[in-house]
Amino acid sequence: MATSTKSNPGNFFEDFKPGETLIHATPQTVTEGDIALYRALTGNRYAQYSSAEFAKAAGLPGLCADPLHAFHIVFGKTVPDISLNAVANLGYADGRVLRPVEPGDTLRASSEVIGVKENSNGKTGVVWVRTKGVNQRGEEVISYVRWVMINKRDEASPAPEAIVPELPAAVAPADLVGFPEMKAWPFAQSGSRHVFEDYEVGEKISHVDGMTVEEAEHQIATRLYQNTAKVHFDAHGQKASRFGKRLVYGGVVISIARSLAFNGLENAGQILAINAGTHVNPLFAGDTIYAWSEVLAKAELSDTCGALRLRLVAVKDADPGAFIHKDGAGKHDPRVLLDFDYWAAIPRAR
Amino acid sequence: MATSTKSNPGNFFEDFKPGETLIHATPQTVTEGDIALYRALTGNRYAQYSSAEFAKAAGLPGLCADPLHAFHIVFGKTVPDISLNAVANLGYADGRVLRPVEPGDTLRASSEVIGVKENSNGKTGVVWVRTKGVNQRGEEVISYVRWVMINKRDEASPAPEAIVPELPAAVAPADLVGFPEMKAWPFAQSGSRHVFEDYEVGEKISHVDGMTVEEAEHQIATRLYQNTAKVHFDAHGQKASRFGKRLVYGGVVISIARSLAFNGLENAGQILAINAGTHVNPLFAGDTIYAWSEVLAKAELSDTCGALRLRLVAVKDADPGAFIHKDGAGKHDPRVLLDFDYWAAIPRAR
Amino acid sequence: MATSTKSNPGNFFEDFKPGETLIHATPQTVTEGDIALYRALTGNRYAQYSSAEFAKAAGLPGLCADPLHAFHIVFGKTVPDISLNAVANLGYADGRVLRPVEPGDTLRASSEVIGVKENSNGKTGVVWVRTKGVNQRGEEVISYVRWVMINKRDEASPAPEAIVPELPAAVAPADLVGFPEMKAWPFAQSGSRHVFEDYEVGEKISHVDGMTVEEAEHQIATRLYQNTAKVHFDAHGQKASRFGKRLVYGGVVISIARSLAFNGLENAGQILAINAGTHVNPLFAGDTIYAWSEVLAKAELSDTCGALRLRLVAVKDADPGAFIHKDGAGKHDPRVLLDFDYWAAIPRAR
Repeated sequence: MATSTKSNPGNFFEDFKPGETLIHATPQTVTEGDIALYRALTGNRYAQYSSAEFAKAAGLPGLCADPLHAFHIVFGKTVPDISLNAVANLGYADGRVLRPVEPGDTLRASSEVIGVKENSNGKTGVVWVRTKGVNQRGEEVISYVRWVMINKRDEASPAPEAIVPELPAAVAPADLVGFPEMKAWPFAQSGSRHVFEDYEVGEKISHVDGMTVEEAEHQIATRLYQNTAKVHFDAHGQKASRFGKRLVYGGVVISIARSLAFNGLENAGQILAINAGTHVNPLFAGDTIYAWSEVLAKAELSDTCGALRLRLVAVKDADPGAFIHKDGAGKHDPRVLLDFDYWAAIPRAR
Repeated sequence: MATSTKSNPGNFFEDFKPGETLIHATPQTVTEGDIALYRALTGNRYAQYSSAEFAKAAGLPGLCADPLHAFHIVFGKTVPDISLNAVANLGYADGRVLRPVEPGDTLRASSEVIGVKENSNGKTGVVWVRTKGVNQRGEEVISYVRWVMINKRDEASPAPEAIVPELPAAVAPADLVGFPEMKAWPFAQSGSRHVFEDYEVGEKISHVDGMTVEEAEHQIATRLYQNTAKVHFDAHGQKASRFGKRLVYGGVVISIARSLAFNGLENAGQILAINAGTHVNPLFAGDTIYAWSEVLAKAELSDTCGALRLRLVAVKDADPGAFIHKDGAGKHDPRVLLDFDYWAAIPRAR
Repeated sequence: MATSTKSNPGNFFEDFKPGETLIHATPQTVTEGDIALYRALTGNRYAQYSSAEFAKAAGLPGLCADPLHAFHIVFGKTVPDISLNAVANLGYADGRVLRPVEPGDTLRASSEVIGVKENSNGKTGVVWVRTKGVNQRGEEVISYVRWVMINKRDEASPAPEAIVPELPAAVAPADLVGFPEMKAWPFAQSGSRHVFEDYEVGEKISHVDGMTVEEAEHQIATRLYQNTAKVHFDAHGQKASRFGKRLVYGGVVISIARSLAFNGLENAGQILAINAGTHVNPLFAGDTIYAWSEVLAKAELSDTCGALRLRLVAVKDADPGAFIHKDGAGKHDPRVLLDFDYWAAIPRAR
């Protein structure tokens, strides 16, 4: 009897049809266990995602999953359908955090194909998808656009009509939702007295601390989100790859860099939107992540709540302070890992 | 004052008396935290053990521990009494999954000695035990037979009368319990449309993906189950051992291989019985696990639910597809880790 | 624009003013997820911290966090304010476990400066703090004194008036609180029949088993407690340090040694007080921890409950039994890691 063909070979470029929606497997119930693990794996210290009492005082329903945690869960679900045959994860845009994820909520994910463009080499193409994560009541909790370069199954297959979606450079402040009433913010317990008004556009903050990533840590984190892309797990198989070893999931870099950013952004713990993100260079186990931030813009959302548009840059094995004043923040330096652009809520001065 | 003799030296072959029951220490309450950790350590993606909503649609009471997880917990409890002085873990048989383990359930374990047979070398003997795991209401949740080779305390002690239990090659389909009503199975979210009728006896499935195991990962998993066998944890002590290093607990291999088997057996997530299991060769940290499966038998359990009897073979650092068609599935190859035989429930065609 | 000064540089010796209280950031809600992780990272097997049913039979409200777990959480909160610029963690004293920590409880921490003394070199000084952990109802759950050697910001700054607090060698038995009624202790499930009356003052117990610590394990554990001292995480930065590599948080050593001590102290699982503790030598990843205990004193607390004052000594890469009878328990041996003095509750003979 021939070998079964039941295992999933993943989709190739030709399989993505603009307008079609893929429903992704394995819905996941998020529990307090997930939240404890996320903290233990990333070093998350933002008070509203650590304390149920602080969360309530900060306008959230109680202890919730960090929006980046929810993003990784939703992203993880898409891997078997979207990026199993991906050559590169090119970017994120228009990411909206729409609802908090409470323990007991179950997240499901689906992706609509919103663009395709074959590359001139005829071997690969770029696919754009709009991915949505919904909870067990069908309410959207997160939504983002992602584009990836994907291998063609057959180089001889004809190029589809190119459709390239127009994407905003950033989510407009008027489109930010889910920001809380921040009147009763418990500054004594948040780690800082700095508020919206204390930050200036153009200000750059070195987050000082470094965190080394071990193989066991990124593997445990990536499985927590049920992201099973083989490049993160298969040391034997990766020997034949370009890098010869396992690559760390980019979401691990985002979350650790964001946790390091606590030191200087203590009160800006709640992410409202992901404007853009690029994984500039790969991270490998044994590397140490450092981070710095730049305030790109500010927006007043209510009398008690403002938003900072922040650029978070992660570097490896190097003083983040040395990168801050380089031309283009040293973006051609192979030690730059991540360039991430997001909005975060922060209390206003009273 | 002499050194205290209060630490546990473990039982030796002479200590096992057929008919006696050992009550094992440290009952354990299984929580959502355990379930999140089990997922993060194994990569478990079967939908009914990931989503509370899917679980209910799949006929379970809600989010439950994977039966293998429950098996490892019960097994872990037996180690200080059964296998502290074991030379080898020889096999499992007649394993029955009797009830789901829900968060909040507390598992206790006991083992009845059902067989003993001294080896001809006079230094060791084989002990058979029937181990039962019960919940806080005293209901059996799992039951299995295990046999181990154990050192004698004193080579001069006389051999006991040999008692070798008769064990079934497999649990009979009529003895399978706890299978759910599968009428409302949410195929869109399970990762596959394949049902009972799609699998043929003799069909072999390569699960493609590989997972490398780190020292930290198997240690964390093995402690999660409170299995404290020193061979898994004591690198210093293991230097003087046959392998010179820590051995990975065989249950870690079972769970990772079973998680890899998702890719091709997506709808067969619920284990109903463990028919047999052999740890063919040891796994060490740094090794990469791959797996393939063979459909050994099929049984119709109800109008909506069938069972597949599956052979799960784990290999290390090698393409599982290359083993499938070898004589005896390459069982003399040192890269074969595990040969595991179990029944799993799967929805039938509607 | 200059680099922002918003990141926390930590306090220096001059910043600690006797009588002042520092409120520490990031309150933390302790969940069942934390308890599962603590078990998986330490190997904790004491039955009252493993089973909700055993806990109730042992006089606790239900499944609670191990008091050492609560200690590490409270300690972790103090690091950014107390020990970011510390040269050495010198000791603990007068640690009182005042209330159980149940899942859902949120812990906050504050520290009062109770002593300062500049060292004769004029470069460093010793600071004593009384740290208190309280729950969401403001009830104290843990309280201890700690002293650390801290760098001066400016060597030219004048020495403060020396204030050195008087500290008890041990918490007096009359001050022990929170010990339970132990009449219905389930000996069959605890792993041992040994009770208060079976232990003699002067008795020494080798705990036999060893546990090797991996970088991923101590990092995950230390982040679980939100202790972000950079020496534990920053491999790149630590290359320039005295040891050239990451140091394991001393609390990891305490908890693993205490978990190993289960083998011989099975019924003495509930810590009532921490009398003293010294981290004699550092632990690095790859080292294997072993432990032995000495009964220093005994106290009858009630008709059903006694207390053992125990000395817990952790050593690395060496047989603990060999240390027991050395002069001074080999305290000048570089393999000695920890000398820890505590009171634990234990059931009395019926």
